[in-house]
Amino acid sequence: MKLTRRVKEILSNYESDNPGTKANLARILMEGRLGGTGKMIILPVDQGFEHGPARSFAANPAGYDPKYHPQLVVDAGLNAYAAPLGMMEAAADVTAGQIPTILKMNSANSLSRTKEGADQAVTANVRDAIRLGCSAIGFTIYPSSDAMYEQYEEIRDLSEEAKEYGLATVIWSYPRGGSLSKEGELAVDIIAYAAHMAALLGAHIIKVKLPTDHLENGEAKKVYQQKEIPISTLADRVRHVMEASFNGRRIVVFSGGAAKGVDSVVEDARAIRDGGGNGSIIGRNSFQRPREDALQLLDTLVKVYQGKA
Amino acid sequence: MKLTRRVKEILSNYESDNPGTKANLARILMEGRLGGTGKMIILPVDQGFEHGPARSFAANPAGYDPKYHPQLVVDAGLNAYAAPLGMMEAAADVTAGQIPTILKMNSANSLSRTKEGADQAVTANVRDAIRLGCSAIGFTIYPSSDAMYEQYEEIRDLSEEAKEYGLATVIWSYPRGGSLSKEGELAVDIIAYAAHMAALLGAHIIKVKLPTDHLENGEAKKVYQQKEIPISTLADRVRHVMEASFNGRRIVVFSGGAAKGVDSVVEDARAIRDGGGNGSIIGRNSFQRPREDALQLLDTLVKVYQGKA
Amino acid sequence: MKLTRRVKEILSNYESDNPGTKANLARILMEGRLGGTGKMIILPVDQGFEHGPARSFAANPAGYDPKYHPQLVVDAGLNAYAAPLGMMEAAADVTAGQIPTILKMNSANSLSRTKEGADQAVTANVRDAIRLGCSAIGFTIYPSSDAMYEQYEEIRDLSEEAKEYGLATVIWSYPRGGSLSKEGELAVDIIAYAAHMAALLGAHIIKVKLPTDHLENGEAKKVYQQKEIPISTLADRVRHVMEASFNGRRIVVFSGGAAKGVDSVVEDARAIRDGGGNGSIIGRNSFQRPREDALQLLDTLVKVYQGKA
Amino acid sequence: MKLTRRVKEILSNYESDNPGTKANLARILMEGRLGGTGKMIILPVDQGFEHGPARSFAANPAGYDPKYHPQLVVDAGLNAYAAPLGMMEAAADVTAGQIPTILKMNSANSLSRTKEGADQAVTANVRDAIRLGCSAIGFTIYPSSDAMYEQYEEIRDLSEEAKEYGLATVIWSYPRGGSLSKEGELAVDIIAYAAHMAALLGAHIIKVKLPTDHLENGEAKKVYQQKEIPISTLADRVRHVMEASFNGRRIVVFSGGAAKGVDSVVEDARAIRDGGGNGSIIGRNSFQRPREDALQLLDTLVKVYQGKA
Amino acid sequence: MKLTRRVKEILSNYESDNPGTKANLARILMEGRLGGTGKMIILPVDQGFEHGPARSFAANPAGYDPKYHPQLVVDAGLNAYAAPLGMMEAAADVTAGQIPTILKMNSANSLSRTKEGADQAVTANVRDAIRLGCSAIGFTIYPSSDAMYEQYEEIRDLSEEAKEYGLATVIWSYPRGGSLSKEGELAVDIIAYAAHMAALLGAHIIKVKLPTDHLENGEAKKVYQQKEIPISTLADRVRHVMEASFNGRRIVVFSGGAAKGVDSVVEDARAIRDGGGNGSIIGRNSFQRPREDALQLLDTLVKVYQGKA
Repeated sequence: MKLTRRVKEILSNYESDNPGTKANLARILMEGRLGGTGKMIILPVDQGFEHGPARSFAANPAGYDPKYHPQLVVDAGLNAYAAPLGMMEAAADVTAGQIPTILKMNSANSLSRTKEGADQAVTANVRDAIRLGCSAIGFTIYPSSDAMYEQYEEIRDLSEEAKEYGLATVIWSYPRGGSLSKEGELAVDIIAYAAHMAALLGAHIIKVKLPTDHLENGEAKKVYQQKEIPISTLADRVRHVMEASFNGRRIVVFSGGAAKGVDSVVEDARAIRDGGGNGSIIGRNSFQRPREDALQLLDTLVKVYQGKA
Repeated sequence: MKLTRRVKEILSNYESDNPGTKANLARILMEGRLGGTGKMIILPVDQGFEHGPARSFAANPAGYDPKYHPQLVVDAGLNAYAAPLGMMEAAADVTAGQIPTILKMNSANSLSRTKEGADQAVTANVRDAIRLGCSAIGFTIYPSSDAMYEQYEEIRDLSEEAKEYGLATVIWSYPRGGSLSKEGELAVDIIAYAAHMAALLGAHIIKVKLPTDHLENGEAKKVYQQKEIPISTLADRVRHVMEASFNGRRIVVFSGGAAKGVDSVVEDARAIRDGGGNGSIIGRNSFQRPREDALQLLDTLVKVYQGKA
Repeated sequence: MKLTRRVKEILSNYESDNPGTKANLARILMEGRLGGTGKMIILPVDQGFEHGPARSFAANPAGYDPKYHPQLVVDAGLNAYAAPLGMMEAAADVTAGQIPTILKMNSANSLSRTKEGADQAVTANVRDAIRLGCSAIGFTIYPSSDAMYEQYEEIRDLSEEAKEYGLATVIWSYPRGGSLSKEGELAVDIIAYAAHMAALLGAHIIKVKLPTDHLENGEAKKVYQQKEIPISTLADRVRHVMEASFNGRRIVVFSGGAAKGVDSVVEDARAIRDGGGNGSIIGRNSFQRPREDALQLLDTLVKVYQGKA
Repeated sequence: MKLTRRVKEILSNYESDNPGTKANLARILMEGRLGGTGKMIILPVDQGFEHGPARSFAANPAGYDPKYHPQLVVDAGLNAYAAPLGMMEAAADVTAGQIPTILKMNSANSLSRTKEGADQAVTANVRDAIRLGCSAIGFTIYPSSDAMYEQYEEIRDLSEEAKEYGLATVIWSYPRGGSLSKEGELAVDIIAYAAHMAALLGAHIIKVKLPTDHLENGEAKKVYQQKEIPISTLADRVRHVMEASFNGRRIVVFSGGAAKGVDSVVEDARAIRDGGGNGSIIGRNSFQRPREDALQLLDTLVKVYQGKA
Repeated sequence: MKLTRRVKEILSNYESDNPGTKANLARILMEGRLGGTGKMIILPVDQGFEHGPARSFAANPAGYDPKYHPQLVVDAGLNAYAAPLGMMEAAADVTAGQIPTILKMNSANSLSRTKEGADQAVTANVRDAIRLGCSAIGFTIYPSSDAMYEQYEEIRDLSEEAKEYGLATVIWSYPRGGSLSKEGELAVDIIAYAAHMAALLGAHIIKVKLPTDHLENGEAKKVYQQKEIPISTLADRVRHVMEASFNGRRIVVFSGGAAKGVDSVVEDARAIRDGGGNGSIIGRNSFQRPREDALQLLDTLVKVYQGKA
């Protein structure tokens, strides 16, 4: 597999990593129809933990089968598949050698009465990722929650171990909890801060939600206004998040959240592309649609990132 | 021992497991009168921890002897025996080489004043299971309890270690505690969620209680009604739980709870069979009956799963 | 040393143990004047932690010297000596090769203001027992206390390590704390439950207090009355505790508590013997008496267990 | 590289350290324009964690790039660069072989609602420092905070491991929290105590803030007044802090805090020099200025420590 | 170095220890002007942690230098020097080969707002003691405090590791906190209990404060009165503490507390000697005096223990 110039350029930003980790990043960047472009689409399926099986899969019952999802990644030509331990184990013969995988290491669930964002359970070990042939580990942090520092210390150890084994680290950085307002969870200053902290924690790939133009923190608001940091369009805000992610030296993908209309998803992707983001991580919007609809949507998204739509 | 086609089919769902773990699953699936059918009956004896010796064994004092129970498994032609550390140690010469065993790793007890479902003590290590020649470890989780995340992290480590040693993992998934209502503990949406989370945690065999047609969670209720998921008969609900367990790719056995009439137990088994469940885990309903009565009941259950009753 | 038939019979109940552990159990069972009979008397000296030096030893100041106690074991022909780390270290030349020893691993003390039964400090490691040439570790659990589950997890690890090294495990099982009434601490249903849980936790030798005929737990009371379990005499209750201890497959010794009259101590021993118990663990009643009185009392107890008194 | 007499003299104070640690201290002391003088200026960039990206770097957007900062260290001829994990990883090719680096091991952030000083997250391991070729680890303690003892135990283990690997330990000692008044955070008795505790914890290099002449602790106040310890000028107070740091046997650098005027920064440096301090650690005052301004300010500071300004 | 008969006699009490630990005890017992007599004076300098630098050293500013103290031990001909990590590191060339050292492993400090006696930070590891060539580790416990059990478990592990490496264990046993009255901290029943527990925890050398004739515990009081244990003179009380310390089989040294008059210190030493105690541990009373005064006082104390004053 010959790496493209663009992928080599991206890899050159990971100058401290060992060849194993670089190879795994390259695998993700070279996979599928966006392979070699520096753009990527990742399919994450961790809704089963979050909302239970019926709320996740009844809309498209084929999704109850753990083999459905990685096959969708193969067929749609996406870059990687992310899932928790059991899902990954149950589809090992689909993923092995076919597509890069990201073992999702922690999860919350809706049966918990701990306040939203309070914590997650770490449900896999790095050695699980190794035996399952994964390319990366995935971990969610909740910046601003009361569990934040504990989560940072968990990913510190998991990530150090992963890097030693030549795996990459993907951090889902979702501000919530603590003294943050509901609106603040998507505020551009907070999302940029969340992306920056994921970078500081040593993430190779950062996943954040698309930010609004709300500014949450008083001190930060002054700076944004005084320095006239452009945040009025979604593309502006994506650009700012990339800046906050080591000036674009880290891969950042954006999520769309709950299932919604095709136009809206496509529009988001165009803004990500125009703002210099690296791509989309798109779960419910793909697996909760019938397979043909999902393939069509994903085809459109691929074209957006190819600059053809 | 030549595996049947059905057992090979079931084993093929465990594609990520090492040969040791597959062999131990095969041992359980090939043991006894249901050996080779893909169906199974397991005898668990952990009531001593839960309710104390007299409440567990006075009804049938032969049960005070730890050798009584595995001998019952042998004589009734069941698939496996599950018990805590001390019980397993004290009957090692009965089980060794004769029947597959599952070391029950955690237990609650009725002397505790922590609220029901709050927690359990982990009373054995994986190395104990190894030295006792067990085929699997067994672990109880209480989805929705405040101890849920901690329990998920305990089974994560135990299960990873067990799989490394070639043992299988059996998860007892009993929703309780937290904000769950008493009725909700058996609600079909909650039981399906509990089975799904056990699968996500990497269980090879899942044990849940038989669900009622109650729907506990408001968001889930909408989905069940909108998608018209059939839950009116017990067989329907068993079928839904199997679907939630990776579309049947994981072995699921159902428990009956407190000792009750023979007809009721047999009726339950027929529903499990008709819904595509893998079998029964039946404790108090066997060891609290006189030995001859127990053997007769177990004989009937075997026949149900053989399709002869 | 040729084992007696009775000792071989007892050892045969420990079928999962390695030769090292069996040898250490044999050493305890073959030591002293009761050696070979299957009966035993153990001298425990952990009062210093519990009540301080003056309350423990001023009654018989010779006891301030850590060498006094193991010498008493030698001279009275008892089976084993149990003590905390420092006591054991300071008398290593008396015990080494002369008598089997049990390193007491945890202790409470009366300066603590945590509620009685709330917890104990673990004051020794298994490696200490190894370097001190001990035959067993000893550990106290408080069934029903709020620290119960944590204590079960502590003894799980200590006992697993001890068994790996060929040591035996002795569990002091003292119900207290939590929602238990003061009277309930000695209730026969609770003592039987406590003995049963010690057996489930993997104890080779169980130590409980002599039970009264009180029944504490409502559900249990129904069973005792309905099944007409005999509990009216002390020998009946000892017999029931033995039944709860894997139907007599585990060694159980009984303690007498605070120093009291000779007749009372001897009467207790007769009931233990008649109920099928394995013997006495007798601390303050021996070391708080002048040496000659203690030797005389111990001689009488030995004769009781020999069936000569 | 031939060490100067002054550097050899300083190194001789670290008589318990292994050659690896001494070599790393020597690297820091010999680097840049102050190399060999015993004085040093360190550039720390951990504001991203503390205040987020925009508040840290919008004033001088070049700073969003992690390579900007170590290049500034090279170009200004400073002694060392300190940063958290991700920043250090992303600039590994700038630092490797060019400048000594200090991996900042823990950080607080302004999204946390735990009270100021309550705690920090440890976001890197010593093995990270090793693989990144760092010369030292950096760790913040909050003397007087409720997290103080836990922090002391964290740095105990990190520092022991670092020393074993031949790395040096830098402790940021910032009194705050607990019963300390806001004014007390800079009180000279408290800053001297904080420096002394960092020395007792085994720090090679201590970083404290410049103290005021406030005296916080009643008992200490009596001693300062009775013994007439000079604290009226800033140079006096620096001298006292050096005394409290093992009579000058430990390297102590002082920080200036928030960005402020050039004159003020230079005046501080003169006091540090005149009081016998080892130098400045200067973050926001350098990287929040445009590069040319920063280089000019740093040039002046270098000259102050060279005795030329 | 030929051991005296008295030292051999003392060493014979440590019959479970390995030759390494015995050698280190011998080093302490044979060092200085009291070498060989079985008596000892130890200089501890951990006041910097407890009260800060000015309150500790302004009275005699030479003490700011970590090399001052071990040199005082050399010059006064004392037996050993005890200090925390940083102090010990900074004077390694003074101590190495010249005097036995005790690494103080834990410390409280007066900036903490946790209640007195609530806890201490463990600020060194046993491996630090090894690399610094120490003869022993030193550890403070607070019997009766709420942190007591946790402290017992800390010293359990540290001491086991130290003994494995051939180091000795010194326990500072200071009753405080919990339900203890202020007067009770020095009550003779409590001090004897504290010394006894230190012995039970495996200490080779025990340090307690000199007790008053107050009796704190009601149950204990009855015993002291009934058994007429002599406690009216200080020498009586020292004798009782020695009895509580395994009948004199453990080395016990006594501390004097805050700096006070020469006569008072000397009088204390005579009582320690007359009561059979092993010596003094004397900190502030030596290093807070001018060097010449301290040497004179220490000379007098040496003579007291030599029976010449």
